[in-house]
Amino acid sequence: MDEWFAGIEAGGTKFNCIIARDPQQVLAETRIDTTTPGETIPKVCEFLKKSINGSGIKISRIGLGFFGPLDLNPRSSTYGSITTTPKLAWRNIPVLSLIQDELGIPATIDTDVNAAAVGEGYWGAARGLDDYVYITIGTGIGGGVVVHGKPVHGMIHPELGHIVVNHDRIVDPFMGSCPYHLDCWEGLAAGPAILQRWHTPAQFLPDDHPAWDLEADYIAQALQTIILALSPQMIILGGGVMNHTGLLEKIRIRTKTILNRYVDHPAIEQHIDQYIIPPALGNRAGVLGAVALAIKQT
Amino acid sequence: MDEWFAGIEAGGTKFNCIIARDPQQVLAETRIDTTTPGETIPKVCEFLKKSINGSGIKISRIGLGFFGPLDLNPRSSTYGSITTTPKLAWRNIPVLSLIQDELGIPATIDTDVNAAAVGEGYWGAARGLDDYVYITIGTGIGGGVVVHGKPVHGMIHPELGHIVVNHDRIVDPFMGSCPYHLDCWEGLAAGPAILQRWHTPAQFLPDDHPAWDLEADYIAQALQTIILALSPQMIILGGGVMNHTGLLEKIRIRTKTILNRYVDHPAIEQHIDQYIIPPALGNRAGVLGAVALAIKQT
Repeated sequence: MDEWFAGIEAGGTKFNCIIARDPQQVLAETRIDTTTPGETIPKVCEFLKKSINGSGIKISRIGLGFFGPLDLNPRSSTYGSITTTPKLAWRNIPVLSLIQDELGIPATIDTDVNAAAVGEGYWGAARGLDDYVYITIGTGIGGGVVVHGKPVHGMIHPELGHIVVNHDRIVDPFMGSCPYHLDCWEGLAAGPAILQRWHTPAQFLPDDHPAWDLEADYIAQALQTIILALSPQMIILGGGVMNHTGLLEKIRIRTKTILNRYVDHPAIEQHIDQYIIPPALGNRAGVLGAVALAIKQT
Repeated sequence: MDEWFAGIEAGGTKFNCIIARDPQQVLAETRIDTTTPGETIPKVCEFLKKSINGSGIKISRIGLGFFGPLDLNPRSSTYGSITTTPKLAWRNIPVLSLIQDELGIPATIDTDVNAAAVGEGYWGAARGLDDYVYITIGTGIGGGVVVHGKPVHGMIHPELGHIVVNHDRIVDPFMGSCPYHLDCWEGLAAGPAILQRWHTPAQFLPDDHPAWDLEADYIAQALQTIILALSPQMIILGGGVMNHTGLLEKIRIRTKTILNRYVDHPAIEQHIDQYIIPPALGNRAGVLGAVALAIKQT
Protein backbone atom coordinates (compact mmCIF):
# COMPACT_ATOMS: atom_id res chain seq x y z
CA MET A 1 0.00 0.00 0.00
CA ASP A 2 1.15 3.49 -0.88
CA GLU A 3 2.35 5.20 2.35
CA TRP A 4 1.85 8.94 3.01
CA PHE A 5 1.79 11.44 5.88
CA ALA A 6 -0.62 14.23 6.76
CA GLY A 7 0.34 17.65 8.08
CA ILE A 8 -2.07 20.10 9.66
CA GLU A 9 -0.97 23.63 10.51
CA ALA A 10 -3.63 25.20 12.70
CA GLY A 11 -3.57 28.99 12.88
CA GLY A 12 -5.94 31.66 14.11
CA THR A 13 -7.58 32.21 10.70
CA LYS A 14 -6.86 29.05 8.66
CA PHE A 15 -6.05 25.37 8.96
CA ASN A 16 -3.53 24.38 6.27
CA CYS A 17 -3.82 20.66 5.53
CA ILE A 18 -1.55 18.58 3.35
CA ILE A 19 -0.91 14.95 2.43
CA ALA A 20 2.71 14.59 1.41
CA ARG A 21 5.96 12.73 1.72
CA ASP A 22 8.25 15.71 1.26
CA PRO A 23 8.06 19.23 -0.23
CA GLN A 24 8.06 17.82 -3.78
CA GLN A 25 5.69 14.85 -3.37
CA VAL A 26 2.34 16.37 -2.42
CA LEU A 27 -0.81 14.32 -2.92
CA ALA A 28 -3.45 16.80 -1.76
CA GLU A 29 -3.60 20.17 -0.06
CA THR A 30 -6.37 22.42 1.25
CA ARG A 31 -7.15 25.40 3.49
CA ILE A 32 -10.06 25.40 5.92
CA ASP A 33 -11.31 28.46 7.85
CA THR A 34 -10.71 28.45 11.60
CA THR A 35 -14.15 28.87 13.16
CA THR A 36 -15.15 26.57 16.03
CA PRO A 37 -13.71 23.15 16.90
CA GLY A 38 -17.10 21.53 16.19
CA GLU A 39 -17.04 22.91 12.66
CA THR A 40 -13.37 23.06 11.68
CA ILE A 41 -12.12 19.71 12.97
CA PRO A 42 -14.77 17.62 11.17
CA LYS A 43 -13.93 19.49 7.92
CA VAL A 44 -10.24 18.68 8.38
CA CYS A 45 -11.04 15.01 9.02
CA GLU A 46 -13.39 14.97 6.02
CA PHE A 47 -10.62 16.25 3.75
CA LEU A 48 -8.25 13.53 4.91
CA LYS A 49 -10.90 10.76 4.67
CA LYS A 50 -11.91 11.80 1.14
CA SER A 51 -8.27 11.79 0.03
CA ILE A 52 -7.75 8.28 1.35
CA ASN A 53 -11.03 6.57 0.43
CA GLY A 54 -10.73 4.19 -2.46
CA SER A 55 -7.40 5.71 -3.52
CA GLY A 56 -5.26 2.84 -2.31
CA ILE A 57 -3.15 5.17 -0.19
CA LYS A 58 -2.50 4.94 3.52
CA ILE A 59 -1.74 7.81 5.91
CA SER A 60 0.71 6.37 8.42
CA ARG A 61 0.74 9.28 10.80
CA ILE A 62 -0.57 12.83 11.17
CA GLY A 63 1.54 15.78 12.33
CA LEU A 64 -0.26 18.65 14.04
CA GLY A 65 1.30 22.11 14.34
CA PHE A 66 -1.16 24.09 16.48
CA PHE A 67 -1.55 27.58 17.81
CA GLY A 68 -1.12 27.46 21.57
CA PRO A 69 -0.60 27.44 24.36
CA LEU A 70 -0.74 23.65 24.29
CA ASP A 71 -0.37 20.94 26.89
CA LEU A 72 2.61 18.98 25.53
CA ASN A 73 3.35 16.96 28.67
CA PRO A 74 2.76 13.30 27.72
CA ARG A 75 2.13 12.43 31.39
CA SER A 76 -0.66 14.99 31.72
CA SER A 77 -4.31 13.96 31.55
CA THR A 78 -4.91 16.86 29.16
CA TYR A 79 -1.98 16.05 26.84
CA GLY A 80 -2.62 17.36 23.34
CA SER A 81 -5.18 19.98 24.41
CA ILE A 82 -5.16 23.69 23.73
CA THR A 83 -5.09 25.43 27.14
CA THR A 84 -5.56 29.16 27.85
CA THR A 85 -5.93 30.65 24.39
CA PRO A 86 -7.82 33.93 23.99
CA LYS A 87 -9.77 32.12 21.18
CA LEU A 88 -12.44 31.06 23.67
CA ALA A 89 -14.11 28.40 21.50
CA TRP A 90 -10.81 26.52 21.41
CA ARG A 91 -9.97 26.69 25.11
CA ASN A 92 -9.39 23.26 26.69
CA ILE A 93 -10.19 21.45 23.42
CA PRO A 94 -8.35 18.09 23.22
CA VAL A 95 -7.40 18.52 19.57
CA LEU A 96 -4.92 15.63 19.46
CA SER A 97 -7.36 13.00 20.68
CA LEU A 98 -10.30 14.43 18.67
CA ILE A 99 -8.36 14.04 15.42
CA GLN A 100 -6.70 10.72 16.32
CA ASP A 101 -9.97 9.15 17.43
CA GLU A 102 -12.00 10.37 14.47
CA LEU A 103 -9.50 9.08 11.92
CA GLY A 104 -7.98 6.10 13.77
CA ILE A 105 -4.53 7.32 12.72
CA PRO A 106 -1.80 8.11 15.27
CA ALA A 107 -0.83 11.78 15.47
CA THR A 108 2.01 13.88 16.86
CA ILE A 109 1.38 17.40 18.15
CA ASP A 110 3.58 20.42 18.76
CA THR A 111 3.23 24.19 18.48
CA ASP A 112 2.92 25.64 14.96
CA VAL A 113 6.31 27.30 15.35
CA ASN A 114 8.04 24.19 16.72
CA ALA A 115 6.59 22.30 13.74
CA ALA A 116 7.97 24.92 11.35
CA ALA A 117 11.36 24.67 13.08
CA VAL A 118 11.32 20.87 12.69
CA GLY A 119 10.39 21.29 9.01
CA GLU A 120 13.29 23.67 8.38
CA GLY A 121 15.61 21.18 10.08
CA TYR A 122 14.30 18.25 8.06
CA TRP A 123 14.06 19.76 4.57
CA GLY A 124 14.97 23.43 4.81
CA ALA A 125 17.60 25.89 5.94
CA ALA A 126 18.66 24.12 9.14
CA ARG A 127 19.42 20.64 7.76
CA GLY A 128 22.12 18.98 9.83
CA LEU A 129 21.84 21.44 12.73
CA ASP A 130 20.93 20.41 16.27
CA ASP A 131 20.42 23.87 17.79
CA TYR A 132 18.48 26.59 15.99
CA VAL A 133 15.45 28.84 16.20
CA TYR A 134 12.56 29.55 13.81
CA ILE A 135 10.77 32.85 14.38
CA THR A 136 7.68 34.24 12.66
CA ILE A 137 6.90 37.95 12.82
CA GLY A 138 3.42 38.78 11.59
CA THR A 139 0.14 39.45 13.38
CA GLY A 140 1.96 38.01 16.39
CA ILE A 141 5.51 36.89 17.10
CA GLY A 142 6.23 33.24 17.81
CA GLY A 143 9.30 31.08 17.93
CA GLY A 144 10.09 27.40 17.65
CA VAL A 145 13.24 26.31 19.44
CA VAL A 146 15.26 23.17 18.65
CA VAL A 147 17.98 22.15 21.12
CA HIS A 148 19.99 18.93 20.96
CA GLY A 149 18.01 18.04 17.82
CA LYS A 150 14.55 18.14 19.42
CA PRO A 151 11.93 20.89 19.86
CA VAL A 152 11.95 22.43 23.34
CA HIS A 153 8.92 21.98 25.58
CA GLY A 154 10.15 22.18 29.20
CA MET A 155 7.46 23.49 31.55
CA ILE A 156 5.09 24.29 28.64
CA HIS A 157 6.89 25.45 25.46
CA PRO A 158 8.73 28.64 24.52
CA GLU A 159 6.66 31.74 23.85
CA LEU A 160 9.39 33.85 22.30
CA GLY A 161 7.09 36.70 21.27
CA HIS A 162 6.70 37.86 24.85
CA ILE A 163 10.35 38.27 25.87
CA VAL A 164 11.50 41.65 27.20
CA VAL A 165 13.09 44.29 24.98
CA ASN A 166 14.40 47.72 25.94
CA HIS A 167 11.71 50.32 25.28
CA ASP A 168 13.08 53.86 25.10
CA ARG A 169 9.93 55.95 25.48
CA ILE A 170 11.67 59.10 24.27
CA VAL A 171 12.55 57.47 20.94
CA ASP A 172 9.26 55.51 20.80
CA PRO A 173 6.40 56.86 22.92
CA PHE A 174 4.02 54.10 21.68
CA MET A 175 2.96 52.21 24.81
CA GLY A 176 2.82 48.76 23.20
CA SER A 177 -0.05 46.55 22.11
CA CYS A 178 0.33 43.32 24.11
CA PRO A 179 -2.77 42.70 26.25
CA TYR A 180 -0.59 40.95 28.86
CA HIS A 181 2.67 42.93 28.96
CA LEU A 182 2.10 46.05 26.79
CA ASP A 183 5.67 46.57 25.62
CA CYS A 184 7.15 43.08 25.30
CA TRP A 185 8.73 42.19 21.94
CA GLU A 186 5.40 41.30 20.29
CA GLY A 187 3.73 44.34 21.85
CA LEU A 188 6.29 46.63 20.18
CA ALA A 189 7.18 44.82 16.96
CA ALA A 190 4.35 42.62 15.62
CA GLY A 191 2.06 43.81 12.82
CA PRO A 192 -0.61 45.33 15.12
CA ALA A 193 2.04 47.39 16.95
CA ILE A 194 3.31 48.80 13.65
CA LEU A 195 -0.25 49.64 12.59
CA GLN A 196 -1.15 51.32 15.90
CA ARG A 197 2.11 53.28 16.14
CA TRP A 198 2.19 54.64 12.58
CA HIS A 199 -1.54 54.41 11.73
CA THR A 200 -0.57 52.56 8.56
CA PRO A 201 -0.35 48.82 7.94
CA ALA A 202 3.25 47.57 7.65
CA GLN A 203 2.91 46.70 3.97
CA PHE A 204 2.09 50.33 3.07
CA LEU A 205 5.02 51.92 4.91
CA PRO A 206 7.68 53.01 2.37
CA ASP A 207 11.22 51.65 2.56
CA ASP A 208 12.63 54.93 3.88
CA HIS A 209 10.04 55.29 6.67
CA PRO A 210 11.60 55.47 10.18
CA ALA A 211 9.35 52.54 11.13
CA TRP A 212 11.82 50.12 9.61
CA ASP A 213 14.87 51.21 11.62
CA LEU A 214 12.82 51.01 14.80
CA GLU A 215 11.45 47.60 13.78
CA ALA A 216 14.95 46.32 13.01
CA ASP A 217 16.16 47.58 16.38
CA TYR A 218 13.47 45.76 18.37
CA ILE A 219 14.04 42.56 16.41
CA ALA A 220 17.82 42.86 16.82
CA GLN A 221 17.40 43.35 20.57
CA ALA A 222 15.33 40.18 20.77
CA LEU A 223 17.92 38.35 18.66
CA GLN A 224 20.68 39.53 21.04
CA THR A 225 18.73 37.93 23.88
CA ILE A 226 17.97 34.77 21.89
CA ILE A 227 21.62 34.39 20.83
CA LEU A 228 22.85 34.82 24.41
CA ALA A 229 20.15 32.67 26.04
CA LEU A 230 19.99 29.80 23.53
CA SER A 231 23.24 30.03 21.54
CA PRO A 232 21.55 28.84 18.33
CA GLN A 233 23.62 27.79 15.31
CA MET A 234 21.11 29.55 13.04
CA ILE A 235 18.13 31.92 13.29
CA ILE A 236 15.37 31.62 10.68
CA LEU A 237 13.08 34.66 10.39
CA GLY A 238 9.73 34.26 8.63
CA GLY A 239 6.26 35.81 8.77
CA GLY A 240 4.49 38.63 6.93
CA VAL A 241 6.43 41.55 8.44
CA MET A 242 9.70 39.94 7.28
CA ASN A 243 8.50 40.21 3.66
CA HIS A 244 9.42 43.89 3.69
CA THR A 245 12.41 44.48 1.37
CA GLY A 246 15.54 45.47 3.23
CA LEU A 247 14.31 44.60 6.73
CA LEU A 248 16.33 41.40 7.01
CA GLU A 249 19.55 43.20 6.07
CA LYS A 250 18.82 45.99 8.60
CA ILE A 251 18.29 43.34 11.28
CA ARG A 252 21.59 41.59 10.48
CA ILE A 253 23.55 44.86 10.69
CA ARG A 254 21.81 46.01 13.85
CA THR A 255 22.21 42.64 15.61
CA LYS A 256 25.95 42.59 14.90
CA THR A 257 26.26 46.20 16.05
CA ILE A 258 24.51 45.76 19.38
CA LEU A 259 26.23 42.45 20.21
CA ASN A 260 29.38 44.59 19.87
CA ARG A 261 31.81 41.68 19.32
CA TYR A 262 30.80 40.02 22.60
CA VAL A 263 30.04 36.77 20.76
CA ASP A 264 33.31 36.49 18.87
CA HIS A 265 32.28 33.73 16.48
CA PRO A 266 32.60 33.67 12.67
CA ALA A 267 28.84 33.02 12.33
CA ILE A 268 28.23 36.54 13.74
CA GLU A 269 31.35 38.46 12.79
CA GLN A 270 31.85 37.15 9.24
CA HIS A 271 28.80 35.25 8.02
CA ILE A 272 25.76 36.86 9.64
CA ASP A 273 24.06 36.73 6.20
CA GLN A 274 24.12 32.93 6.54
CA TYR A 275 23.23 33.02 10.25
CA ILE A 276 20.04 35.13 10.23
CA ILE A 277 18.13 33.88 7.19
CA PRO A 278 14.63 33.48 5.74
CA PRO A 279 12.89 30.07 5.84
CA ALA A 280 13.86 27.82 2.92
CA LEU A 281 10.34 26.38 2.95
CA GLY A 282 8.83 29.89 2.79
CA ASN A 283 5.24 30.10 3.99
CA ARG A 284 4.94 26.29 3.80
CA ALA A 285 7.37 25.81 6.71
CA GLY A 286 4.51 25.25 9.14
CA VAL A 287 2.44 22.74 7.19
CA LEU A 288 5.48 20.84 5.86
CA GLY A 289 6.91 20.96 9.38
CA ALA A 290 3.77 19.20 10.57
CA VAL A 291 4.49 16.47 7.99
CA ALA A 292 8.09 16.28 9.23
CA LEU A 293 6.79 15.88 12.81
CA ALA A 294 4.79 12.89 11.63
CA ILE A 295 7.64 11.32 9.65
CA LYS A 296 10.21 11.76 12.44
CA GLN A 297 7.97 9.93 14.93
CA THR A 298 7.17 7.00 12.68
CA MET B 1 41.49 0.09 43.41
CA ASP B 2 39.48 2.81 45.11
CA GLU B 3 37.74 4.88 42.37
CA TRP B 4 37.23 8.64 42.69
CA PHE B 5 36.52 11.71 40.55
CA ALA B 6 38.08 15.17 40.49
CA GLY B 7 36.20 18.43 40.05
CA ILE B 8 37.82 21.75 39.20
CA GLU B 9 35.80 24.95 39.22
CA ALA B 10 37.88 27.67 37.58
CA GLY B 11 36.81 31.22 38.35
CA GLY B 12 38.34 34.64 37.90
CA THR B 13 39.88 34.75 41.37
CA LYS B 14 40.10 31.11 42.55
CA PHE B 15 40.28 27.55 41.31
CA ASN B 16 38.23 25.28 43.59
CA CYS B 17 39.51 21.70 43.41
CA ILE B 18 37.95 18.60 44.93
CA ILE B 19 38.32 14.84 44.85
CA ALA B 20 34.96 13.30 45.63
CA ARG B 21 32.31 10.78 44.77
CA ASP B 22 29.34 12.83 45.88
CA PRO B 23 28.64 15.79 48.21
CA GLN B 24 29.14 13.58 51.30
CA GLN B 25 32.18 11.57 50.23
CA VAL B 26 34.99 14.09 49.81
CA LEU B 27 38.58 12.89 49.87
CA ALA B 28 40.44 16.19 49.46
CA GLU B 29 39.62 19.80 48.68
CA THR B 30 41.67 22.96 48.06
CA ARG B 31 41.55 26.49 46.65
CA ILE B 32 44.26 27.88 44.40
CA ASP B 33 44.59 31.53 43.33
CA THR B 34 43.87 32.30 39.68
CA THR B 35 47.03 33.98 38.40
CA THR B 36 48.49 32.83 35.06
CA PRO B 37 47.96 29.48 33.31
CA GLY B 38 51.69 28.69 33.71
CA GLU B 39 51.41 29.08 37.47
CA THR B 40 47.86 28.01 38.33
CA ILE B 41 47.48 24.87 36.21
CA PRO B 42 50.67 23.18 37.52
CA LYS B 43 49.47 23.88 41.10
CA VAL B 44 46.11 22.27 40.35
CA CYS B 45 47.83 19.22 38.84
CA GLU B 46 50.23 19.07 41.79
CA PHE B 47 47.28 18.95 44.22
CA LEU B 48 45.68 16.08 42.34
CA LYS B 49 48.97 14.16 41.96
CA LYS B 50 49.80 14.48 45.67
CA SER B 51 46.34 13.25 46.62
CA ILE B 52 46.70 10.17 44.42
CA ASN B 53 50.36 9.22 44.98
CA GLY B 54 50.78 6.16 47.17
CA SER B 55 47.21 6.47 48.46
CA GLY B 56 45.86 3.52 46.50
CA ILE B 57 43.13 5.65 44.99
CA LYS B 58 42.44 6.21 41.34
CA ILE B 59 40.87 9.28 39.73
CA SER B 60 38.79 7.90 36.85
CA ARG B 61 37.91 11.22 35.29
CA ILE B 62 38.23 14.96 35.87
CA GLY B 63 35.40 17.43 35.42
CA LEU B 64 36.30 21.02 34.54
CA GLY B 65 33.89 23.91 35.07
CA PHE B 66 35.64 26.92 33.58
CA PHE B 67 35.06 30.63 33.18
CA GLY B 68 34.55 31.35 29.49
CA PRO B 69 33.96 31.89 26.77
CA LEU B 70 35.08 28.36 25.90
CA ASP B 71 35.36 26.39 22.69
CA LEU B 72 33.05 23.43 23.41
CA ASN B 73 32.77 22.12 19.85
CA PRO B 74 34.36 18.64 19.86
CA ARG B 75 35.05 18.92 16.12
CA SER B 76 37.04 22.14 16.53
CA SER B 77 40.85 22.11 16.55
CA THR B 78 40.74 24.36 19.63
CA TYR B 79 38.20 22.25 21.55
CA GLY B 80 38.60 22.76 25.29
CA SER B 81 40.33 26.14 25.01
CA ILE B 82 39.35 29.43 26.60
CA THR B 83 38.69 31.88 23.74
CA THR B 84 38.14 35.66 23.98
CA THR B 85 38.25 36.26 27.73
CA PRO B 86 39.21 39.74 29.01
CA LYS B 87 41.67 37.86 31.31
CA LEU B 88 44.43 38.19 28.71
CA ALA B 89 46.83 35.62 30.19
CA TRP B 90 44.14 32.98 29.71
CA ARG B 91 43.15 33.84 26.15
CA ASN B 92 43.44 30.88 23.76
CA ILE B 93 44.80 28.60 26.48
CA PRO B 94 43.90 24.93 25.78
CA VAL B 95 43.02 24.17 29.40
CA LEU B 96 41.40 20.78 28.70
CA SER B 97 44.42 19.29 26.93
CA LEU B 98 46.93 20.91 29.34
CA ILE B 99 45.28 19.22 32.32
CA GLN B 100 44.52 15.91 30.57
CA ASP B 101 48.04 15.59 29.20
CA GLU B 102 49.79 16.52 32.43
CA LEU B 103 47.81 14.03 34.48
CA GLY B 104 47.07 11.32 31.92
CA ILE B 105 43.45 11.26 33.12
CA PRO B 106 40.52 11.91 30.76
CA ALA B 107 38.62 15.11 31.47
CA THR B 108 35.27 16.69 30.55
CA ILE B 109 34.92 20.45 30.21
CA ASP B 110 31.98 22.82 30.31
CA THR B 111 31.31 26.35 31.52
CA ASP B 112 31.37 26.93 35.29
CA VAL B 113 27.64 27.66 35.22
CA ASN B 114 26.74 24.65 33.06
CA ALA B 115 28.75 22.54 35.53
CA ALA B 116 26.80 24.01 38.45
CA ALA B 117 23.55 23.31 36.60
CA VAL B 118 24.59 19.69 36.03
CA GLY B 119 25.50 19.40 39.73
CA GLU B 120 22.11 20.70 40.83
CA GLY B 121 20.47 18.19 38.49
CA TYR B 122 22.57 15.30 39.75
CA TRP B 123 22.52 15.89 43.51
CA GLY B 124 20.67 19.12 44.17
CA ALA B 125 17.45 21.01 43.61
CA ALA B 126 16.77 19.88 40.03
CA ARG B 127 17.02 16.11 40.46
CA GLY B 128 14.77 14.35 37.96
CA LEU B 129 14.29 17.43 35.78
CA ASP B 130 15.34 17.60 32.13
CA ASP B 131 14.87 21.34 31.55
CA TYR B 132 16.08 23.94 34.01
CA VAL B 133 18.39 26.90 34.48
CA TYR B 134 21.06 27.72 37.07
CA ILE B 135 21.91 31.42 37.41
CA THR B 136 24.57 33.09 39.52
CA ILE B 137 24.34 36.81 40.32
CA GLY B 138 27.51 38.19 41.84
CA THR B 139 30.45 40.12 40.37
CA GLY B 140 28.97 39.04 37.04
CA ILE B 141 25.82 37.24 35.96
CA GLY B 142 26.06 33.82 34.34
CA GLY B 143 23.65 31.05 33.58
CA GLY B 144 23.88 27.34 32.91
CA VAL B 145 21.08 25.93 30.79
CA VAL B 146 19.99 22.27 30.71
CA VAL B 147 17.54 21.20 27.97
CA HIS B 148 16.47 17.62 27.24
CA GLY B 149 18.73 16.54 30.13
CA LYS B 150 21.96 17.97 28.74
CA PRO B 151 23.76 21.33 29.07
CA VAL B 152 23.21 23.62 26.10
CA HIS B 153 26.18 24.57 23.92
CA GLY B 154 24.81 25.32 20.43
CA MET B 155 26.97 27.84 18.56
CA ILE B 156 29.14 28.50 21.67
CA HIS B 157 27.23 28.30 24.96
CA PRO B 158 24.64 30.54 26.60
CA GLU B 159 25.83 33.83 28.10
CA LEU B 160 22.69 34.68 30.03
CA GLY B 161 24.21 37.68 31.81
CA HIS B 162 24.14 39.77 28.66
CA ILE B 163 20.48 39.43 27.65
CA VAL B 164 18.43 42.60 27.16
CA VAL B 165 16.28 44.09 29.92
CA ASN B 166 14.08 47.18 29.79
CA HIS B 167 16.01 50.15 31.17
CA ASP B 168 13.76 53.03 32.17
CA ARG B 169 16.25 55.90 32.41
CA ILE B 170 13.80 58.08 34.32
CA VAL B 171 13.48 55.52 37.11
CA ASP B 172 17.16 54.52 36.87
CA PRO B 173 19.50 57.07 35.24
CA PHE B 174 22.56 54.82 35.84
CA MET B 175 23.98 54.12 32.39
CA GLY B 176 25.08 50.55 33.09
CA SER B 177 28.47 48.95 33.70
CA CYS B 178 28.86 46.33 30.95
CA PRO B 179 31.94 47.10 28.83
CA TYR B 180 30.22 45.55 25.78
CA HIS B 181 26.55 46.57 26.07
CA LEU B 182 26.37 49.09 28.96
CA ASP B 183 22.80 48.34 30.11
CA CYS B 184 22.34 44.62 29.49
CA TRP B 185 21.15 42.53 32.48
CA GLU B 186 24.64 42.17 33.96
CA GLY B 187 25.39 45.83 33.27
CA LEU B 188 22.38 46.89 35.37
CA ALA B 189 22.11 44.17 38.02
CA ALA B 190 25.46 42.52 38.86
CA GLY B 191 27.45 43.56 41.94
CA PRO B 192 29.55 46.24 40.18
CA ALA B 193 26.39 47.91 38.82
CA ILE B 194 24.91 48.07 42.33
CA LEU B 195 28.16 49.54 43.69
CA GLN B 196 28.46 52.15 40.93
CA ARG B 197 24.80 53.18 41.07
CA TRP B 198 24.49 53.54 44.85
CA HIS B 199 28.17 54.10 45.73
CA THR B 200 27.83 51.34 48.32
CA PRO B 201 28.63 47.63 47.97
CA ALA B 202 25.50 45.46 47.83
CA GLN B 203 26.18 43.83 51.19
CA PHE B 204 26.04 47.21 53.00
CA LEU B 205 22.74 48.36 51.49
CA PRO B 206 19.97 48.04 54.13
CA ASP B 207 16.89 45.89 53.50
CA ASP B 208 14.64 48.91 53.00
CA HIS B 209 16.95 50.61 50.49
CA PRO B 210 15.28 51.24 47.07
CA ALA B 211 18.19 49.35 45.50
CA TRP B 212 16.48 46.06 46.28
CA ASP B 213 13.20 46.77 44.51
CA LEU B 214 15.12 47.91 41.44
CA GLU B 215 17.37 44.84 41.63
CA ALA B 216 14.36 42.52 41.95
CA ASP B 217 12.75 44.23 38.96
CA TYR B 218 15.76 43.73 36.67
CA ILE B 219 16.12 40.10 37.76
CA ALA B 220 12.38 39.49 37.30
CA GLN B 221 12.52 40.99 33.80
CA ALA B 222 15.34 38.63 32.91
CA LEU B 223 13.39 35.71 34.38
CA GLN B 224 10.35 36.67 32.28
CA THR B 225 12.55 36.40 29.21
CA ILE B 226 14.19 33.16 30.38
CA ILE B 227 10.81 31.57 31.19
CA LEU B 228 9.39 32.54 27.78
CA ALA B 229 12.50 31.66 25.76
CA LEU B 230 13.49 28.41 27.48
CA SER B 231 10.37 27.27 29.34
CA PRO B 232 12.43 25.80 32.21
CA GLN B 233 10.83 23.52 34.80
CA MET B 234 12.85 25.26 37.53
CA ILE B 235 15.09 28.32 37.98
CA ILE B 236 17.92 28.13 40.52
CA LEU B 237 19.33 31.49 41.64
CA GLY B 238 22.73 31.57 43.36
CA GLY B 239 25.66 33.96 43.75
CA GLY B 240 26.68 36.60 46.25
CA VAL B 241 23.99 39.20 45.45
CA MET B 242 21.30 36.54 46.09
CA ASN B 243 22.50 36.19 49.70
CA HIS B 244 20.65 39.40 50.53
CA THR B 245 17.70 38.59 52.82
CA GLY B 246 14.35 39.13 51.18
CA LEU B 247 15.65 39.54 47.62
CA LEU B 248 14.53 36.07 46.49
CA GLU B 249 10.99 36.68 47.72
CA LYS B 250 10.86 40.10 46.01
CA ILE B 251 11.98 38.43 42.76
CA ARG B 252 9.30 35.74 43.00
CA ILE B 253 6.54 38.31 43.53
CA ARG B 254 7.80 40.63 40.82
CA THR B 255 8.24 37.82 38.26
CA LYS B 256 4.69 36.61 38.80
CA THR B 257 3.38 40.18 38.59
CA ILE B 258 5.07 41.07 35.31
CA LEU B 259 4.27 37.73 33.63
CA ASN B 260 0.68 38.81 34.37
CA ARG B 261 -0.86 35.31 34.09
CA TYR B 262 0.42 34.85 30.55
CA VAL B 263 2.06 31.56 31.54
CA ASP B 264 -0.94 29.96 33.19
CA HIS B 265 0.86 27.06 34.85
CA PRO B 266 0.70 25.97 38.52
CA ALA B 267 4.51 26.30 38.80
CA ILE B 268 4.12 30.08 38.34
CA GLU B 269 0.63 30.79 39.63
CA GLN B 270 0.62 28.56 42.72
CA HIS B 271 4.11 27.31 43.53
CA ILE B 272 6.55 30.00 42.48
CA ASP B 273 8.36 29.49 45.82
CA GLN B 274 9.28 26.01 44.55
CA TYR B 275 9.99 27.25 41.02
CA ILE B 276 12.50 30.05 41.68
CA ILE B 277 14.78 28.63 44.36
CA PRO B 278 18.31 28.82 45.79
CA PRO B 279 20.87 26.13 44.89
CA ALA B 280 20.64 23.04 47.14
CA LEU B 281 24.42 22.64 46.87
CA GLY B 282 24.94 26.27 47.94
CA ASN B 283 28.32 27.72 46.94
CA ARG B 284 29.62 24.21 46.19
CA ALA B 285 27.29 23.83 43.18
CA GLY B 286 30.14 24.68 40.78
CA VAL B 287 32.84 22.39 42.11
CA LEU B 288 30.48 19.49 42.82
CA GLY B 289 28.94 20.10 39.41
CA ALA B 290 32.39 19.58 37.91
CA VAL B 291 32.51 16.21 39.70
CA ALA B 292 29.04 15.40 38.32
CA LEU B 293 30.27 16.27 34.80
CA ALA B 294 33.05 13.71 35.27
CA ILE B 295 30.78 11.01 36.70
CA LYS B 296 28.10 11.44 34.01
CA GLN B 297 30.64 10.96 31.21
CA THR B 298 32.28 7.88 32.69
